[in-house]
Amino acid sequence: MAPGGLYNRHARVQSSAAVFAGPLLQRAAQEASLPPAGEAVVFADYGCATGRNSNHPAAIAIRALRAREDRPVLVVHEDQPENDFATLFGTIEAEPDGYLRMFDRVSACAVGRSFYQPTLPAGFVSVGWSSAAAHWLSRVPTPLPGHLWAPTARSAQGAAFSKQARDDWARFLALRADELRVGGRLVIVVATVDQDGICGGEQILDGLNRAVQELVAAGALSSDDYASMVVPCFFLSEAELEAPFHREDLAGRLHLIEHARTVSPDPLWSAFETTGDREALASAFTGWVRGFSEPCLFGSLELPPTQRRALADQAYAALEREIRSHPENARCAWRSAALLVGKR
Amino acid sequence: MAPGGLYNRHARVQSSAAVFAGPLLQRAAQEASLPPAGEAVVFADYGCATGRNSNHPAAIAIRALRAREDRPVLVVHEDQPENDFATLFGTIEAEPDGYLRMFDRVSACAVGRSFYQPTLPAGFVSVGWSSAAAHWLSRVPTPLPGHLWAPTARSAQGAAFSKQARDDWARFLALRADELRVGGRLVIVVATVDQDGICGGEQILDGLNRAVQELVAAGALSSDDYASMVVPCFFLSEAELEAPFHREDLAGRLHLIEHARTVSPDPLWSAFETTGDREALASAFTGWVRGFSEPCLFGSLELPPTQRRALADQAYAALEREIRSHPENARCAWRSAALLVGKR
Repeated sequence: MAPGGLYNRHARVQSSAAVFAGPLLQRAAQEASLPPAGEAVVFADYGCATGRNSNHPAAIAIRALRAREDRPVLVVHEDQPENDFATLFGTIEAEPDGYLRMFDRVSACAVGRSFYQPTLPAGFVSVGWSSAAAHWLSRVPTPLPGHLWAPTARSAQGAAFSKQARDDWARFLALRADELRVGGRLVIVVATVDQDGICGGEQILDGLNRAVQELVAAGALSSDDYASMVVPCFFLSEAELEAPFHREDLAGRLHLIEHARTVSPDPLWSAFETTGDREALASAFTGWVRGFSEPCLFGSLELPPTQRRALADQAYAALEREIRSHPENARCAWRSAALLVGKR
Repeated sequence: MAPGGLYNRHARVQSSAAVFAGPLLQRAAQEASLPPAGEAVVFADYGCATGRNSNHPAAIAIRALRAREDRPVLVVHEDQPENDFATLFGTIEAEPDGYLRMFDRVSACAVGRSFYQPTLPAGFVSVGWSSAAAHWLSRVPTPLPGHLWAPTARSAQGAAFSKQARDDWARFLALRADELRVGGRLVIVVATVDQDGICGGEQILDGLNRAVQELVAAGALSSDDYASMVVPCFFLSEAELEAPFHREDLAGRLHLIEHARTVSPDPLWSAFETTGDREALASAFTGWVRGFSEPCLFGSLELPPTQRRALADQAYAALEREIRSHPENARCAWRSAALLVGKR
């Protein structure tokens, strides 16, 4: 994620995708098995980024747990080691809706490790939560010349990305099964595709892709560098998300309790419909896209940081101009899935 | 601490101060009460910085715990929210002596909060460890014109710093008493003063102080800025370190099991005696001083970052020149204390 809170400021889209999973999370916290008497209850937040979308679910989980028993709660925020944990710790403590300000006897810690590896002791977690994170792949399965991502099976090179996504999803679930307490609960929110294979945000990187292609045409970026630029997300279907729960190795350990699906509202577009403010839409949309895409697209280019930054500035400025003239290109209708899972 | 691993590269002095406490830590891990069967054992590392001095004690504690029971272990690294946790996570995992590489079923997390606040759930910690950290004060009690620190009662303004240090020490112990499991153990290593009130490193900032005074004389730094520059460390005596254990509020909760004291070897000086290499001594000493002092001395100056950095570069370069011509000014004979504490 981009450093210095950029992702925080522009994470409203991910937040709205998670809202519909609130009731599932509440149910998870009501039903989850707890550790022996007196021991702290653990709530794990897998893929926390800088924490902007962690305060609300943490508050839901803590309230539901406290309604059952008045125990200390430990919240574990997990993300990759290079994540901006300094901003995370500020977000959960210093911001007005920081859950550490709202509740007594709640502690927080961070785990800096990919969730495609073991992250916590076996049987440690009573309630797990992961929102808008598990659709990020563990690796880029193949270079992607001509495109910046392959988010669905209908995309160019979609097959290779689909294979990676199905493998990663099974691995994610198996690792979380290790970390959940027997009787524990896990809620996972991801983008998904509907029965027509549509995710509802296919076009969001098209304008940026055109801008990057112009950088290549102008000689500012090599074709090889362009081919290496990938946002490694992929969105699985309802059946693909459910498949691991039928596989012998996992079915004895995890069970799928509920699978909710929706088309998420688009908060940026809703605001634009009310205000008609193209500048505001273009700025917010570009900020949001930049927040999740800049590190993977520009962060690993073999260039000096200032040059990388200048290229990114150019590309995102071009995207912003495009949205100003064609606001409809910013409109999303994300298909979202929320799964409530139990540990046997 | 300085970002980007600077503190890591130059933390050998702190490391040597901690070596003599190894046996106490081993004993702590052998004696500490453990959580209910099947639950992970928690080892807490209070004041971890970027982790260079965490791998060795973590390995001691994990080995001793595993000799008792084959259980999952969770290591909690605690430091201030702005600490460089990305480097920490790299140090414990990617470096050759990273304990996450050496042991199975060991997990790690970080808490970004001052240890003068609650950091973990009540009764969560079986074994605690804090090395070269608890002699850092929670705040600067008074400006310090003319000096960069007041490390002992004999220093100018020593009385105000001594009061702050005694209050902070009692608060540190009371908070750790909350976080320790009943029967848990805590080992704390700090610099101290001997019966003559000597800490053995009084002079280490003198050369830097002269360099900063030259910056003031040259008009590059204001007198007010100079007065605000303080390394907020203070070193208590044997009796002062033991006093809180006799106070009614704490004596019922913590007991002092052992208090070991030593004069620590100076690894930089020992290397210099072998090689006679003044350049190497000056560079290593300056790097070490800069690692712990730059953030508190230069980090909060109300100047643009590049200007702050330039001032710091000048001052530390002057210190390095001074040590090259007067190597003896780098020689330390730190008085160190290690306390083994039990939770009643």
